[in-house]
Amino acid sequence: MDLPKETFALVQKHDGFSGKAEGPHIESLDLYLEAATIPLKELADGQVLIKMAMASINPSDLHYIKGEYGHPRVKGAAAGFEGVGEVIAGSGGYAQSLVGKRVAFTVDPAGSGTWAEYAITSAAVCIPVRDDMRNEDAAAHVVNPLTAMAMFDIVRKAESGSFIMTAANSQLCKLMTALGRDNDIAPIAIVRKDEQIAHLKELGAKHVLNSTDGDFKETLKAIVKKEKPRVMLDAVANQVSADVFAVMPNRALWVVYGKLDPEPPQFREMGQFVFMEKRIEGFWLTRWFMSTPLEEQIKIIGEVQARFVSGQWETEVTNTIRLGDAMSDLADALRNSDGKVMLVP
Amino acid sequence: MDLPKETFALVQKHDGFSGKAEGPHIESLDLYLEAATIPLKELADGQVLIKMAMASINPSDLHYIKGEYGHPRVKGAAAGFEGVGEVIAGSGGYAQSLVGKRVAFTVDPAGSGTWAEYAITSAAVCIPVRDDMRNEDAAAHVVNPLTAMAMFDIVRKAESGSFIMTAANSQLCKLMTALGRDNDIAPIAIVRKDEQIAHLKELGAKHVLNSTDGDFKETLKAIVKKEKPRVMLDAVANQVSADVFAVMPNRALWVVYGKLDPEPPQFREMGQFVFMEKRIEGFWLTRWFMSTPLEEQIKIIGEVQARFVSGQWETEVTNTIRLGDAMSDLADALRNSDGKVMLVP
Repeated sequence: MDLPKETFALVQKHDGFSGKAEGPHIESLDLYLEAATIPLKELADGQVLIKMAMASINPSDLHYIKGEYGHPRVKGAAAGFEGVGEVIAGSGGYAQSLVGKRVAFTVDPAGSGTWAEYAITSAAVCIPVRDDMRNEDAAAHVVNPLTAMAMFDIVRKAESGSFIMTAANSQLCKLMTALGRDNDIAPIAIVRKDEQIAHLKELGAKHVLNSTDGDFKETLKAIVKKEKPRVMLDAVANQVSADVFAVMPNRALWVVYGKLDPEPPQFREMGQFVFMEKRIEGFWLTRWFMSTPLEEQIKIIGEVQARFVSGQWETEVTNTIRLGDAMSDLADALRNSDGKVMLVP
Repeated sequence: MDLPKETFALVQKHDGFSGKAEGPHIESLDLYLEAATIPLKELADGQVLIKMAMASINPSDLHYIKGEYGHPRVKGAAAGFEGVGEVIAGSGGYAQSLVGKRVAFTVDPAGSGTWAEYAITSAAVCIPVRDDMRNEDAAAHVVNPLTAMAMFDIVRKAESGSFIMTAANSQLCKLMTALGRDNDIAPIAIVRKDEQIAHLKELGAKHVLNSTDGDFKETLKAIVKKEKPRVMLDAVANQVSADVFAVMPNRALWVVYGKLDPEPPQFREMGQFVFMEKRIEGFWLTRWFMSTPLEEQIKIIGEVQARFVSGQWETEVTNTIRLGDAMSDLADALRNSDGKVMLVP
């Protein structure tokens, strides 16, 4: 088969960082991307070329194309960190051995993004997926599930009987809600819309609070008093997060993994670091990959597939959009926060 | 010898917490204390009665009498956490064995405070002091020196070649400055008065910055770029602290051990927890005592005495005030921040 030399893709219009921190909200996609056909580079040793089946869209992708993620944008390069597809070429022994396999993967800076017909990444990060795993689950196999597993491990190590999640209607939080349910560690979910409450309870959240409710603070205090959550997994990092942290008990740990709200929070209880042994740290999957032994990663990936195939986890998809329609349709589709939006070629 | 049944002391006027967080500044002592003669309780098993030689005044004492410390005030009880004196009675074998010894000590909630002619504490926390140690050093043997040793240990474990201190003109920071000097870990001191710069440099600070200078931020950035300090030991916890933390490098750790400034800081760089692996935690000596094995504590106490006796450390005293004059003179004396104020019977 003749290998493609170029790919249709959603391509970045800007280089580097924006210097802003607006959060992953997208007003109009053409501020950041354009649909274009770009050349595919020769595969470097250890790289594979993948014919995309489905690409996922994570908040980190949106932060990235807006220039407010942990590494700089590259103008002219395809966007998209994650997806599933078939390996059609490889350079080097292991990479070639993957040809013909359906793999879930993420793209490193040396590769070419997943919001495209063809993507390039390192063979080392390709995960062959079981035949019985849906494309919807395989396309979102890495970023959310491994983040969920890794952050839930922080909860487990804190020996806490419960944990708090903000922006809890996200797909990531739904995965962590199921982990809490299956491990008897009570998920306490904070959302901003009443419509999201019933489904999260169905998935296993013991308490779901709406932070825009007038009695939010009182309800929260009562729940915290009862459940004593020692960990907050926080994607929002705004004043609500800071206020939740302030009512948490001794030894509470605030794990920041996103900044959905650009508003800088004020910390009114700095003394709690001293007297209550509270702590703040961050979580970034990129760092987790670098610091977690490969055997451990492989073990966790196996658990992830098993959870999806058994139905303990399910990637909820609200919209599947063709690559060619993304420039006009994607921003709108992302406004529905009840599930993920997927891209197909 | 007949044991005293009562003691002249500076006695607390209020119970519990104030609900405020004003910081340790004292406008007038009689808002919080009164000079009075109070009865001394019978010694419980394991307690000793101490005839005070000298008591120190730490920021924690002032936070405490103002009702903004880690445990609640007790109306009618003598104030003062730390001092040196002679044990004149003990209950139980080990406590009795200390009679006649000069001991440095802190007072736990079951005891009776050091701002008095007589104090009561647990024999377990009494440290017999060498004859060649000055009362000025022995009266301030525990709180500052052990805090200095413990926090410097955090710096050491961070494997950082330098560290930042705020409110660096404090006696505590002078001890840590000397530790940095003696261990080749560059102290970077932040103060608010130019007059404090020369002496801190003399003690071993590599850089001393005045945070009220117009070019403070630029100077700080240049120094941080050069020295890459990974730890900030912070007694102030205000906007300056937050801004310093924001310019610190990857993996920076902010250790909050005080809240000198009541102003709540705003955190403009929450994303740094995610992408730069920054962390915030607190330090409280009370917790250090509970979590550090006794052998380790004893070893460190030996090092503390050796440092004072050898002259590597010196407690700088600006004023020594008689207990009977404290109500009128103490608040004024505390306005001089160049050294410690001591109380003598």
